[in-house]
Amino acid sequence: MHAPSIGGSAPLSHTLPTTAAALLERVRTRRPRVHCITNTVAQEITANAVLAAGAVPSVTISLDEIAAFVASADALLINLGTLEPAHRAVIALAIATARDKSVPWVLDPVFIDRSPVRAAYAREIAAQGPALVRGNAGEIGVLGEGADAQALARRLGTVVAATGGTDLITDGRRAVGIANGHPFMASVTGMGCAGAAVTAAFLAAGDDAFTATAAALLVLGVAGEIAAEAAQGPGTFASAYLDALHRLDAADLAARARIVDLAGEGS
Amino acid sequence: MHAPSIGGSAPLSHTLPTTAAALLERVRTRRPRVHCITNTVAQEITANAVLAAGAVPSVTISLDEIAAFVASADALLINLGTLEPAHRAVIALAIATARDKSVPWVLDPVFIDRSPVRAAYAREIAAQGPALVRGNAGEIGVLGEGADAQALARRLGTVVAATGGTDLITDGRRAVGIANGHPFMASVTGMGCAGAAVTAAFLAAGDDAFTATAAALLVLGVAGEIAAEAAQGPGTFASAYLDALHRLDAADLAARARIVDLAGEGS
Amino acid sequence: MHAPSIGGSAPLSHTLPTTAAALLERVRTRRPRVHCITNTVAQEITANAVLAAGAVPSVTISLDEIAAFVASADALLINLGTLEPAHRAVIALAIATARDKSVPWVLDPVFIDRSPVRAAYAREIAAQGPALVRGNAGEIGVLGEGADAQALARRLGTVVAATGGTDLITDGRRAVGIANGHPFMASVTGMGCAGAAVTAAFLAAGDDAFTATAAALLVLGVAGEIAAEAAQGPGTFASAYLDALHRLDAADLAARARIVDLAGEGS
Repeated sequence: MHAPSIGGSAPLSHTLPTTAAALLERVRTRRPRVHCITNTVAQEITANAVLAAGAVPSVTISLDEIAAFVASADALLINLGTLEPAHRAVIALAIATARDKSVPWVLDPVFIDRSPVRAAYAREIAAQGPALVRGNAGEIGVLGEGADAQALARRLGTVVAATGGTDLITDGRRAVGIANGHPFMASVTGMGCAGAAVTAAFLAAGDDAFTATAAALLVLGVAGEIAAEAAQGPGTFASAYLDALHRLDAADLAARARIVDLAGEGS
Repeated sequence: MHAPSIGGSAPLSHTLPTTAAALLERVRTRRPRVHCITNTVAQEITANAVLAAGAVPSVTISLDEIAAFVASADALLINLGTLEPAHRAVIALAIATARDKSVPWVLDPVFIDRSPVRAAYAREIAAQGPALVRGNAGEIGVLGEGADAQALARRLGTVVAATGGTDLITDGRRAVGIANGHPFMASVTGMGCAGAAVTAAFLAAGDDAFTATAAALLVLGVAGEIAAEAAQGPGTFASAYLDALHRLDAADLAARARIVDLAGEGS
Repeated sequence: MHAPSIGGSAPLSHTLPTTAAALLERVRTRRPRVHCITNTVAQEITANAVLAAGAVPSVTISLDEIAAFVASADALLINLGTLEPAHRAVIALAIATARDKSVPWVLDPVFIDRSPVRAAYAREIAAQGPALVRGNAGEIGVLGEGADAQALARRLGTVVAATGGTDLITDGRRAVGIANGHPFMASVTGMGCAGAAVTAAFLAAGDDAFTATAAALLVLGVAGEIAAEAAQGPGTFASAYLDALHRLDAADLAARARIVDLAGEGS
């Protein structure tokens, strides 16, 4: 590994707040459609976070309809929470449609550290060309079977985001950390899933999946910090988080961003 | 078309606030049971809106149980969001039970503009005698295959409500517009679905489906305006909306109603 | 029946606030995993209440995965809301796993007063050794087929909690009432289901199911009272309730507890 991580350009810590503000504005203007195949527990906050960010969610998992919804979407989220057998046919058709129509898709391998069946299935899907794999550090560790996030990103040819106290985003070559966020984000169910759906909207709006993912996680982390200041606990935090996503602007991002340039692996 | 739309009686713009307050009071006193077959993403806000309005929701979609729940309900909502194949048998039995027991039912053809399969299915169901078909303007347009709301209402022999910036309610003969509401209502998932369930409660409490629907949409629109004044964004709006539905009174309706008498088609 | 209900020890009205504070602290420290098989409408508030109390929820109902999730959980909730046929195989496997691994489990027989099919099924499950059966007074009445809560608890060899204006908790020998709570708790969907899941976390943390259940219901009732003081209606109440669960401390419990010692049946 060697620094700086990004060729001759300015470090991401300098440019990301502006890039993130521009992408957020693009999401609000273009209103990309994000189809979300996700667990029932997270569906509502996921749809509400996508709306709060300015994009348009849909959540059907009907086998009859999934191809029509994905084909007319601008991004796709596949979340493995509460995975039922019937979902697998739906997921397979969704991925095939996304690949056929060049719709970028995100894999969120929720709870694969609790279920070997799910871990095996997640590995199978991760090999099918997602633009992004997003999980918490434990889930990314299980998915990689010991490989770190950068090695996993290179092996899969995708962006990998391992979220936590500091989010790590890498495409195997470049790497950046986002230190924004608040512990309440781990006290509200579906917050990570919702963040993955918002990130999918940024993938639809952006040109480069690595930058779009970092931008989305910066927006989400800053929204979390703003929300925590207005909250009395995790209940009011959830509402305040949606408010903050809706109101967030370039000045908030510039003032609050805590971005860590990491040494990427020059390929 | 010719005005005035309602025989010799006073225009609805004069009488509706009082009628709506009386029906809301009746919902709070009688507590009608509203069985909601709806998409999983909207179930929670739907049930909470029904409770906030004073009625009693249930949401099971078990084929074994649907007849017992519908038979003991005072109104039924059929929402086509996240439509899965197994739901069709449930919906068929629910409609048959509702017809047999004279339980008024509402069809909400969510997202039929995104899925041809769903649009065809919605047309099939709409012909089976709902008291009300409620959708946004785009959905009502797809359902009507080019016919406007009044023509669709006459063809189906039902009330049609096309919601939007101004809600249009018609039974094919009479027509009224409700200009209340707030843009945040489109920024919270399931808000329209929840409104359809509350409207079903008003159908259970009222004698005339056209008036009950207009009353419900007035109540929902005014609640939205009150909520927006207390909200910082779509997250706090969703909570404030339930609060407003719970607290709304005759004075709020009288002070805030923006009702547009429309020329109906004298049949 | 004769008093006092508990051998030579102090009455529960004196000791429960301290016991409840100690168990809550243990939940926050040990973070027990609570697997929740519950209706989709209540999943989100259930998971959020478990998180707010300091425990870790999971909610999958996949037949492939349920054994792995229950085997690695510290408590299990089985809620019969929106019961679909496929859930029965999942529930059977979950109970078998819980029995095999000595994981305490709670049965919540939601809405069995609306569906004879569900009532029969609930009676079958209640005979399989739950640590606790929790329902509202009507549901417990239907489950007991006329027997009161104490008689039902003796027959099933379990703790029974009948929640309402005053919650009644009994193991058939001891009995106590908790008079805390607020009417808004009945105006938010899933609140009872969420409470049952939090109670499951207390069962994981406690040594005696009767005391742990009473402690949990005290915590939930006091949280409801604190939340109502911060709420404008049922919408803001739901958020404030999660905040209160998150912040609740021993002083709140001591100051607000309203515990009624009831004469138990000395066996």
